[in-house]
Amino acid sequence: MPTRPLLTLLLTLSLSGALIAQDNAAARAARQWRQQHERAIVDEFVELLKIPNVARDRENIRRNADFIVAMMRRRGIEARTISVDGANPLAFGEIKTPGATRTIVFYAHYDGQPLEPREWTTPPWEPTLRTAAIDAGGQVIPLPPAGTPFNPEWRLYARSASDDKAPIIAQMAAIDAIRAANIPLKSNIKFVFEGEEEAGSANLVKMLEANKALLSGDIWLMCDGPVHQTRRPLIYFGARDVVTFEITVYGPKNELHSGHYGNWAHNPAMVLSKLLASMKDDKGRVVVDRFYDGIVPLSATERRAIAEAPEIDAQLMREFWLGSTEGAPKKLLELITQPSFNIRGLSSSHVGTQANNVVPTTATASIDIRLVKGMDPARTLDRVVDHIRKQGFFVTEQEPTADVRMAHPLVLRLTRQRVGLGAVRTSMDLPISQEVIRVVESVRGPTIKLPNMGGSLPLAEVEIPLGTRTIEIPIVNHDNRQHSSDENLRIQNLWDGIELMAGLLAM
Amino acid sequence: MPTRPLLTLLLTLSLSGALIAQDNAAARAARQWRQQHERAIVDEFVELLKIPNVARDRENIRRNADFIVAMMRRRGIEARTISVDGANPLAFGEIKTPGATRTIVFYAHYDGQPLEPREWTTPPWEPTLRTAAIDAGGQVIPLPPAGTPFNPEWRLYARSASDDKAPIIAQMAAIDAIRAANIPLKSNIKFVFEGEEEAGSANLVKMLEANKALLSGDIWLMCDGPVHQTRRPLIYFGARDVVTFEITVYGPKNELHSGHYGNWAHNPAMVLSKLLASMKDDKGRVVVDRFYDGIVPLSATERRAIAEAPEIDAQLMREFWLGSTEGAPKKLLELITQPSFNIRGLSSSHVGTQANNVVPTTATASIDIRLVKGMDPARTLDRVVDHIRKQGFFVTEQEPTADVRMAHPLVLRLTRQRVGLGAVRTSMDLPISQEVIRVVESVRGPTIKLPNMGGSLPLAEVEIPLGTRTIEIPIVNHDNRQHSSDENLRIQNLWDGIELMAGLLAM
Repeated sequence: MPTRPLLTLLLTLSLSGALIAQDNAAARAARQWRQQHERAIVDEFVELLKIPNVARDRENIRRNADFIVAMMRRRGIEARTISVDGANPLAFGEIKTPGATRTIVFYAHYDGQPLEPREWTTPPWEPTLRTAAIDAGGQVIPLPPAGTPFNPEWRLYARSASDDKAPIIAQMAAIDAIRAANIPLKSNIKFVFEGEEEAGSANLVKMLEANKALLSGDIWLMCDGPVHQTRRPLIYFGARDVVTFEITVYGPKNELHSGHYGNWAHNPAMVLSKLLASMKDDKGRVVVDRFYDGIVPLSATERRAIAEAPEIDAQLMREFWLGSTEGAPKKLLELITQPSFNIRGLSSSHVGTQANNVVPTTATASIDIRLVKGMDPARTLDRVVDHIRKQGFFVTEQEPTADVRMAHPLVLRLTRQRVGLGAVRTSMDLPISQEVIRVVESVRGPTIKLPNMGGSLPLAEVEIPLGTRTIEIPIVNHDNRQHSSDENLRIQNLWDGIELMAGLLAM
Repeated sequence: MPTRPLLTLLLTLSLSGALIAQDNAAARAARQWRQQHERAIVDEFVELLKIPNVARDRENIRRNADFIVAMMRRRGIEARTISVDGANPLAFGEIKTPGATRTIVFYAHYDGQPLEPREWTTPPWEPTLRTAAIDAGGQVIPLPPAGTPFNPEWRLYARSASDDKAPIIAQMAAIDAIRAANIPLKSNIKFVFEGEEEAGSANLVKMLEANKALLSGDIWLMCDGPVHQTRRPLIYFGARDVVTFEITVYGPKNELHSGHYGNWAHNPAMVLSKLLASMKDDKGRVVVDRFYDGIVPLSATERRAIAEAPEIDAQLMREFWLGSTEGAPKKLLELITQPSFNIRGLSSSHVGTQANNVVPTTATASIDIRLVKGMDPARTLDRVVDHIRKQGFFVTEQEPTADVRMAHPLVLRLTRQRVGLGAVRTSMDLPISQEVIRVVESVRGPTIKLPNMGGSLPLAEVEIPLGTRTIEIPIVNHDNRQHSSDENLRIQNLWDGIELMAGLLAM
């Protein structure tokens, strides 16, 4: 048997991230357990992924929540669903640890982004194992028999394979491993699995306020989002908040023949293009007045953490087939500490073989704005509306009547979707932040620390009602096609995630 | 029996355009025939409209052509289909008139614009009679029994009810009427009904060149498009030509999470918006370099004709719910003698409930440019491509590879669709032009004369191979929703069209 330093050295020899320093007993137990139960872990995951999970599909959402509650109960975790009127339920579980003086809450969400099944190579709710990513030539294969190890580069394709059912499975497997190895827990543990995160967590605040004592903890570990693009482990101490809305501009009452009326009737697609073009300069900076007001600058620790993180812009550009980036010469890590303004989609009449020679009746853009700490979401949207008005539009939140459309040269309908509570960022200098960093590094080795992720999580929705702090612990691969078709999870990320969750559960 | 002046006076009492001066025996015969055969005329029309007629639907296109040939043969017209490889057939018919010294060719097209059945209130190929336009509260009613007159304000809903099967039915009913009244024809008559006009008349030139003698005539009367918005009769002496193309700009290889990569990865929807916005100024003028070069100015007669035409901008703005127009203060009649640049449709990822928080992979705009006399279609498109290049794009006509996308900051794919032979305009001062005006006014009273219609017809495709002239004789209502869903024909326009065609056939 090798001596301890040698063991550590051996484990430090990194092979696709599979072997790393593990000065953490719970993580070692998790690895052993996982190696003996790969098929069983994936089987349980597959069952969970089979249940459709778009937030507005209430019946299947309920099935997901019930399934997760049953998963927890099988492990002896006190579990139940929690809800308020009109909300998708939280699946809640609790492990009370005798003598514990603190409570760690593990958060993930079981709902997934809406999708268009036709865009998927294999059906989104029929989990499919492939030998690699589809665009790397991955072929469909059956699950290997129990006892045969999975190739860690295989990928499991399904909606929410990454975002965000993977952490749920990782946590459950980690609990199994800790129990099997008789490793005592030191903290009280709570699990909170949300069912409408992708729909904007509209009821999270209400549910937390209604169950404040039950759901409180010293820290909420938000298990969502991908690890670093280099596959290195990563901790985020905040997230951008997101405001989503849609704008529709109006042309003629019905589609008009573009020959008879083109360049006389306003073309809403051109009007929308001009409006959108007016919102950003050629360097990607938003030119809406006062858009950047109030932003809280990064601390010295935060700036240092960014400077220490690997720069991966060139690698990502190759991966995504990009010949340039929008905010160049600024790098990704700097840009995600700034707000963004993103067009999610455009639609006006038809393109392709369905295109007609018409002046369209409307043109719509779906938009998301990512906010950083210090920006007020409602005020930011108001500033965008002010900008739209300055471009000459009458802005309404209702479908405009004929009279309204005729009374104004340009009419725009704004549909507010998500307007949250704002972005939050936990200081990396807090003792709990430092402890989480230590545990993660004991399991997974040197870890990238970033002030905030580019994506959004309902952090303010947790911090404000509960008066707690949040830290983000991602486990999934960055190239998971999250929010898009063909979402997938790299198997090694699940294995690593189980070990990481074991370390954090035993902290 | 009233004397002739009194008869003329009575007929001059206009009632919804139904009664007008008719110093034309063929037109009077047509009215009498129509009044006695309304149901039979509409029955034949309904049968023709039932046959789906999108140009790419080859099987149904063939059924349309055969049906029309049979219609002609039933009337003793020598008829057959004419085609070349890969083309939708022309339905051709000929009446040889002994002693005639000239040949008049009547053109219409039997194909219709592509459509999306879900957007139709009643199915596009199930012709449906309504008591009025749908948006005026028109209710579905059955066809009245034979012998019961149709209300002239009723409307028949179907794809191509107006564009462009109505003239075919009008001409056939006019032939029946002329024959029944024993009115002798003075000219040789040919009928040419095209089957791919809405697909850009791609094979028309080839078919005319291959059948030059058969299809030649002294004048081609192009029966397409709507009459004036006041419902007054109208003759156009030209049309705008149309160039159609699609542009797609590229973002990341696959949709990226807008939080993690928004404002770092180029957003193709924003890139496209900026490009489109760069193509027109705020007055609706195209700012592509040299776009307006070479345009042949209007003659004195043409300018006078426009000045005499009624101005209907204010009425149309009310009808189409517009609060402003793009080219104001220029009026519609002036604007359609100028080229246009129209966005037919936009598409990028999703909007509405299907919208995801992503950076889209592509954004596409479908565009049509209307050209006036003197503009070269291919050169105009080249100038647009030059403009796109000046905005920093690498332009390709193929789907760009990964290497191409990475080698250029901005990549755009151009898909050429229709690039025609250019716009033509027949002088109003020619003897044949003056004669057509006299005949139309003898049937329908004072008539609006315009140098060109805003829409497009394959006029150069006829004039160049055959060395003939074209004049446009529309019959359908302007509010027919041509090219859009719920296309319809106002019954009175069909009745008026039968009389007009009778007058022209007997000319």
